[in-house]
Amino acid sequence: MQFSTDILIIGGGPASVVVANTAKKYYPQKSITIIKDKKIGVIPCGIPYMIYSLSKPEDNIMPFDAIEKLGVDVKIDRAIKIKRDDKTVITENGDIYSYEKLVIATGSKPITLNIEGFNLKNVFPIFKDFEYLKQMVDSIKKAKNIIVLGGGFIGVEFADELSNLKDKNVYLIEIKDRLLPNSFDPEFSDLVKSKLENKGVNILLDTKVEKILGKENVERVSLSDGRVIDADVVVCGLGGVPNVELAKSCGLDMGKGKGIWVDEYMRTSDRDIFAVGDCAGKRDFFTRRDNPVMLASVATAEARIAGANLYELKVIRENKGTIGIFSTYISGLVLASVGLTETSAKEENFEVVVGNYEGIDKHPGNLPYGSKIKIKLVFSKQSGILMGGQVAGGFSAGEIINIIGMAIQKNVSITELETFQMATHPYLTPAPTKYHLVIAAQNVLEDL
Amino acid sequence: MQFSTDILIIGGGPASVVVANTAKKYYPQKSITIIKDKKIGVIPCGIPYMIYSLSKPEDNIMPFDAIEKLGVDVKIDRAIKIKRDDKTVITENGDIYSYEKLVIATGSKPITLNIEGFNLKNVFPIFKDFEYLKQMVDSIKKAKNIIVLGGGFIGVEFADELSNLKDKNVYLIEIKDRLLPNSFDPEFSDLVKSKLENKGVNILLDTKVEKILGKENVERVSLSDGRVIDADVVVCGLGGVPNVELAKSCGLDMGKGKGIWVDEYMRTSDRDIFAVGDCAGKRDFFTRRDNPVMLASVATAEARIAGANLYELKVIRENKGTIGIFSTYISGLVLASVGLTETSAKEENFEVVVGNYEGIDKHPGNLPYGSKIKIKLVFSKQSGILMGGQVAGGFSAGEIINIIGMAIQKNVSITELETFQMATHPYLTPAPTKYHLVIAAQNVLEDL
Repeated sequence: MQFSTDILIIGGGPASVVVANTAKKYYPQKSITIIKDKKIGVIPCGIPYMIYSLSKPEDNIMPFDAIEKLGVDVKIDRAIKIKRDDKTVITENGDIYSYEKLVIATGSKPITLNIEGFNLKNVFPIFKDFEYLKQMVDSIKKAKNIIVLGGGFIGVEFADELSNLKDKNVYLIEIKDRLLPNSFDPEFSDLVKSKLENKGVNILLDTKVEKILGKENVERVSLSDGRVIDADVVVCGLGGVPNVELAKSCGLDMGKGKGIWVDEYMRTSDRDIFAVGDCAGKRDFFTRRDNPVMLASVATAEARIAGANLYELKVIRENKGTIGIFSTYISGLVLASVGLTETSAKEENFEVVVGNYEGIDKHPGNLPYGSKIKIKLVFSKQSGILMGGQVAGGFSAGEIINIIGMAIQKNVSITELETFQMATHPYLTPAPTKYHLVIAAQNVLEDL
Repeated sequence: MQFSTDILIIGGGPASVVVANTAKKYYPQKSITIIKDKKIGVIPCGIPYMIYSLSKPEDNIMPFDAIEKLGVDVKIDRAIKIKRDDKTVITENGDIYSYEKLVIATGSKPITLNIEGFNLKNVFPIFKDFEYLKQMVDSIKKAKNIIVLGGGFIGVEFADELSNLKDKNVYLIEIKDRLLPNSFDPEFSDLVKSKLENKGVNILLDTKVEKILGKENVERVSLSDGRVIDADVVVCGLGGVPNVELAKSCGLDMGKGKGIWVDEYMRTSDRDIFAVGDCAGKRDFFTRRDNPVMLASVATAEARIAGANLYELKVIRENKGTIGIFSTYISGLVLASVGLTETSAKEENFEVVVGNYEGIDKHPGNLPYGSKIKIKLVFSKQSGILMGGQVAGGFSAGEIINIIGMAIQKNVSITELETFQMATHPYLTPAPTKYHLVIAAQNVLEDL
C-alpha cells in the first residue's frame, strides 16, 4: 500500500516518542507516522527492574497509547529502504510511505562477543523487545547460577536486582579493574563494589569470559584466569553500537565515530532527514570529539531539538555538545555522574583540580531518613570552570546530579558555586553552613 | 580587659560561623574572635523541629566546637559600641577588642505586635536562644490550645509539628487570604492548606488577632471576626527586622530598606567593616530594589563572600543579587519556591508566561516510593528568561528547587531548559520522555 504522511519517524524508542510529541506541539497541523519493528517495546532504563522491583514485566512496557491519542499513526513494520530522490520509505510489508520530513531513530544494537558459545540458549544480549525480555526474566527465575557480563550501569543494575532473588549465585564479570570505570573515579567504584558484595554478588574484576560452554543451553563459562564456573543464564551488559544500516545504504554521511553525521539541529547531510538518539553521532561537550554516549536522556534531548526544528529552526540549541549524565540506584545507594571524572579528564589531558564533600543529607544529621552523601567536583585548574561531578548518597543524589549538570551546561566557575544561593531545609538538605556543592567548591583550595 | 584580634565577628548565627570558617581557609595566619551574646544558640531552620521531629531540643543546638577546634576564639559577651576611629569594639563586660577587620553579623529580631496582651506569659516570638526555646517547647507540651500566628514558612512548619502532638487544638492564623502568600501562587497555597487541615490544624485566613487576653498567662485571643478562642500558648511566626542599632550608632550608612548598606562584597561604607546576613541590606536579583529576604541560606552565601574577601577581593561575586529560595517539608509534602511567583512577577509589572508540569517522580510510576510532583515555571514572555519556579512533591523536590535556582542564577532561557541534558533513572526521576523541568518549559507553548 501507499501512504502519505508529513512527518515520518522510524523507530519505537523514547526518542521516537519525544520527536512525535514535540512535533505535535510545534506543528499541530502536520500528520505524523511512526514505523516501529517491535510489536511491544520496553522503557529502556526500566529493563533491569523487570526482574524484581516491578511487580510484573508488563509494567515496563513502553506506552504508545498517549501518542496515538494525539493522532499519531503507529505502524508495526520494518523500514528497509529510504529512497531520498522521491522522499519515500519502503517497508518489509511492501508498503511505501512518502514523507516531507523523515526522522531516523533506529537506536542501537547490543554488543555481542565473537567467542565460542555466545549463540547458546540462555545467553541474553539486551534487546529492547518485550517478548524477548520476558523470556529472559522467565529463564532467570528458573536459573541457579547467573552470570552478568559487564560492570557498567546495566551490569551493575542487573546484578543488584538479581541479588534480591532467593537462592541464586550471581556473578558480575568486568574486564577492567573496577566497576563503572567510565563514569566514576576509583573511590566511587569501591562503594558500588562493597554494596553489591554485601548483597552477595560475586564480583570478578580484571576478568574476561573466554568461552561459553554447553550443548543447547549455556552450562558453564570459562574465564581468563583459568576457572570454569557453572552458568544457567548469561546476561550481557556490554553496551551498544549505533544502528545505521538504513542511513548508510541511502548515502547519508557518517560521522567520525560510529553514528550518523548530524549538525547542531540533528539534521543529517540531507536537510529533510533528521537523526536522533543512539543512531546519531554525538560531539563531546568539552572536546567536540566524537562521544558515543547512549542514554535515553540524551536521546530525548536530541529528539526535542529535532521535533521543534523539523520545518523551521525555532528552538536554538544553546548547549555546546553532549555530556554523559547518569544516575543509578543500588538497593538504597544512589550513584550519579556527570561530565568528566578526574580519571577521564586526565586521560583527555585536561589540567584539573578537585573538591570533595562528605556529610549527611539532612540537618541536624540525626533527623529521620538521613543518608550519607559524598560528592566530588572536577574543575579546570586554570580557568576554574566546572567539568564534572560524582555523587554517592540517598534519593536526593538523583536530582543533585542535575544541579551539577545544569552548572556544567552553563559553564559555572568555582567562585560561582562558592557563592551559589540555594534552598536548604532540615528534612531535605545539609545545613546552609555545609551545603554540599558549595563546600565541595570551597574545598578546591585544599587541592591547590 | 583588652584583647587584640585580626578578624572580629559580632554574632552567633550561621553567618558568623561561615565567615569564620571561610576566613580560616583563605587567611589561615589571621587570628579570629567571635563575640556572641547568647550562651547557647540554635540552628535557625531546625527550630520548629525541636517540638516533635527531633528526639530532644538539645539536638538543635548550634555547634561551635568545630570552629573552636580551628582556633577561633569564641566569647560570650555583648558588643555595645564600635569605635571606628581606633578600630575597637567595647562590650557589656567592659572588655575592649581591637580588630583589623570587623564583621557585623547581628541578625534580626522577631517582629512583635503592638496589641494588648502581647507581653503575657506563653506568648512566644521566635528568639534564637536555646534556653528560651526550650521553655517554649515545655509550655507547648503542657498546653491544650495552641495558636500559631503567621502563615509563612515558620508558621506552617510550627503548625505541622504541633499537629503531630496528641490532644492539642492547633490554630494557624494568617492575615492574608492564603498560606505562604509571598512564595507561592494560590494553587500551591491550597496544597499546604489541605495537607494541614487533613492533619487537624484549624486554619483561619483573612484573620487578624486583635487582643491577647489573660491575667499573667495568655488565656484567650480575640480575633478580627469577633470570635474569642482559648489559647494556652501563642507562637508568633511574623518575620523579623534587621538588628542594626550597633551599626547605626557608629555611623555606618543604611540602605534604602531596613538593613545596613553593603556593596557587592558585603563591605559597609567603612571598608574595614563588613556586614552579612539578616542585618545586611539585600538587592533583588531581578529588580535591584531592596529585598529583605531573611534566610540562613542567603546569610551563609553572603558570609562566604565576606570571609574570602576580608583582606583582598579574591572571590568575585558573579550573581546579580539576592533571590528568595526556600523549601519546606510538611509531613511528607515538600514545597519549594525560588525567584518570582506569577503573582509577585505581575505585582512587580513583569510580563510573564508560565509552564506547568504534573506527574510522578519515578518511572514507571508504580515503582515503590513514588510521589506526585507539580511544578510551575515563570518566564519573561519577551526575553524567554527563567524568573521563578515552584515545586510541590516528595523528597526530590528539595534539590529540584536548586536546579531551578542554578538556572535562574545563570539566566537560563526556555529553549535551554527544553534542550537540557539531565540524568534520569526509574527510582529517582520521571522518565526521560517526561522530565519535569523540560516538560514544564515545553508547556509554555500552551500559555503563548
